[in-house]
Amino acid sequence: MKALMLVCDGMADRPVRELKGRTPLEVAKKRNMDALARRGITGILDPIAPGVRVGSDTTHLALLGYDPYEVYTGRGPFEAAGVGLKLRQGDIAFRCNFATVDENWVVLDRRAGRISRGTDELARAINRIKIPGVEIIFKESVSHRGVLILRGKKLSHKVSDSDPHVTGEKVRKVRALDASPEARKTASIVNAFSEKVHKVLRGQPANMLLLRGCGASPRLQPFKEKYGISGACIATTGIIKGIARLAGMEVIEAKQDYSARIKQGLGTLNRYDFLLMNIKEPDEASHDHDAKKKIQLIEEIDKALKPLLEFSKKNYLLLLSDHTTSLAYGDHTGDSVPVVLCGPEARTDYVKKFDERSTAKGGLGRIKGQDLMPLLLDLMNRSEKFGA
Amino acid sequence: MKALMLVCDGMADRPVRELKGRTPLEVAKKRNMDALARRGITGILDPIAPGVRVGSDTTHLALLGYDPYEVYTGRGPFEAAGVGLKLRQGDIAFRCNFATVDENWVVLDRRAGRISRGTDELARAINRIKIPGVEIIFKESVSHRGVLILRGKKLSHKVSDSDPHVTGEKVRKVRALDASPEARKTASIVNAFSEKVHKVLRGQPANMLLLRGCGASPRLQPFKEKYGISGACIATTGIIKGIARLAGMEVIEAKQDYSARIKQGLGTLNRYDFLLMNIKEPDEASHDHDAKKKIQLIEEIDKALKPLLEFSKKNYLLLLSDHTTSLAYGDHTGDSVPVVLCGPEARTDYVKKFDERSTAKGGLGRIKGQDLMPLLLDLMNRSEKFGA
Repeated sequence: MKALMLVCDGMADRPVRELKGRTPLEVAKKRNMDALARRGITGILDPIAPGVRVGSDTTHLALLGYDPYEVYTGRGPFEAAGVGLKLRQGDIAFRCNFATVDENWVVLDRRAGRISRGTDELARAINRIKIPGVEIIFKESVSHRGVLILRGKKLSHKVSDSDPHVTGEKVRKVRALDASPEARKTASIVNAFSEKVHKVLRGQPANMLLLRGCGASPRLQPFKEKYGISGACIATTGIIKGIARLAGMEVIEAKQDYSARIKQGLGTLNRYDFLLMNIKEPDEASHDHDAKKKIQLIEEIDKALKPLLEFSKKNYLLLLSDHTTSLAYGDHTGDSVPVVLCGPEARTDYVKKFDERSTAKGGLGRIKGQDLMPLLLDLMNRSEKFGA
Repeated sequence: MKALMLVCDGMADRPVRELKGRTPLEVAKKRNMDALARRGITGILDPIAPGVRVGSDTTHLALLGYDPYEVYTGRGPFEAAGVGLKLRQGDIAFRCNFATVDENWVVLDRRAGRISRGTDELARAINRIKIPGVEIIFKESVSHRGVLILRGKKLSHKVSDSDPHVTGEKVRKVRALDASPEARKTASIVNAFSEKVHKVLRGQPANMLLLRGCGASPRLQPFKEKYGISGACIATTGIIKGIARLAGMEVIEAKQDYSARIKQGLGTLNRYDFLLMNIKEPDEASHDHDAKKKIQLIEEIDKALKPLLEFSKKNYLLLLSDHTTSLAYGDHTGDSVPVVLCGPEARTDYVKKFDERSTAKGGLGRIKGQDLMPLLLDLMNRSEKFGA
């Protein structure tokens, strides 16, 4: 018996004015999602807790059963794992942008013209930077993005960003965010690093790295050890891949076409007990305030889900949005999301549609992200009994 | 004003294939339970948390408002209290089986032919065993069962079972489960005890004790002190009685016939404010995969509940299953259970039937085992105000 957790990123929404107060899920024609709602047990889910605005990173940690408040100190380490860097205990990591600054370090372009070529060569120069007592590990990523790991004794993730987050402002001095000597030492190392980066990149359009999201290498109990089942992940975004890698799951490059991707997922489940699959695009449509696009994407995804009706007769399927991404606000919000759980022994309910309002009447009631793995393992009869 | 918490053990179920996807509660004719659902406020309850597979012991602790993660280290002490042994702080206790082993300590029969007579004499021999620095307190229980208490300085419950849990394997050496000197010392005491038991029982059909479920004597705040009301318990199983005793509740031997037992319960409530009543049989039918028997038991229990319709006009009644016991799986599962709360000031809802799916639409929503006592005390106007 297998289990698929299919996460449609940011698919849930608030009532949208241009949709006459309905949500994209309520407007879209989605025969397969509704069929799953009829066959399964539905509910609404708070990714972390009611009203808490979450990132895709913190949510996916919770969905996999990890406590984000315990393991998440910043996005850096997850990005690092996402680009394939191996973290060690004690490492700290930042997300980076290649940027263009003037002679006074005022940011002219936070993305260095969305530079797309030659960053591998810049990365080599950055990796040659020497700072006593600390190892520098930098890797360029898609477009202007990159990841920096600092490895050394007594480093702290409690340091601020050098990224001012807007153009026209100076690159910020990194500050210690607590009173520890470790944080002060780390801040001065990072500031020295920024000086050297600007030197080695001098004359380039990308003549600076902006650092943000510093975090400490998290200790995630391996998925297999935690649950006794094997797990894989199919995703397109680095951060989701990074989380899966840090949890010791196999990460598989996603096919682009949704139907091909669902088939790829079902194929993967021949080799693994559990698969986490993330479909990123609905979230991006919401960030772009594009209601029409979001509805269209939901309908496209829906068409690809047909094989899951058969799959969920003998296996378990969880379909959900990882968080609400509001078309009006253009960012994640803390609203709950619809969820449906289908499979041979799931207690069905009376809900017939998969959307925010319908599933609020479902048999699961209101649950949390961290409840999903226990619910799933229990239905698979794979959980330990507490007591006798 | 009085309160009765009536727990039908393992009565909830998953959809059952041979019942065409319905549950025993959905199939059974249960006029009184449904009448209570119509008159009360219903909901679904996670004994501990969503998806957590619980024992009857850990659940009953939660239902009485104790945190099982805090007080439950193993079943031993609750069994000990169940057979009437008085535990002291620092004691550790095991559940025991009289067993038959060969000369190499290979287990031939884990229950010594379900020995039923003469175990009191074997117990006397065991209680004469001397081990320096530790007091041995053994008591035989029903059939081949017994309980062992070890009393001494610096004992630890972090030790493994000597019971191999299957025939044909050797009695296990008890190991320390953590690195503490206390656990190592305890393991060596228990292994020395097993040697001596085998010596004093030599030549008997029951020539060994198999030990399991070691736990430390829990510190349960007395029920009366915790809630300001007096409590009693009517049950047939030792473990439930043990929990009630450790909570300082009066334990009353249950009458066999369900109607007589309900009347016995109402009579008991002349002397106590609160009564916990456990009816064990539905759980056993599920462990035996016997759907027909389970439905029949539910109908028999239902008939006995008629007096509760009158009782709950002026008093509060909670009717629930303590956990789901799946007919298909034959063991407890982590699914939620239906619950109904009836009484003069309970907010009623629109639910008309007492079963898993119907009560999921109830006015209580999805609550937890540890929520019940506060809800009950509040309706009885017996709870302290937090704040002003």
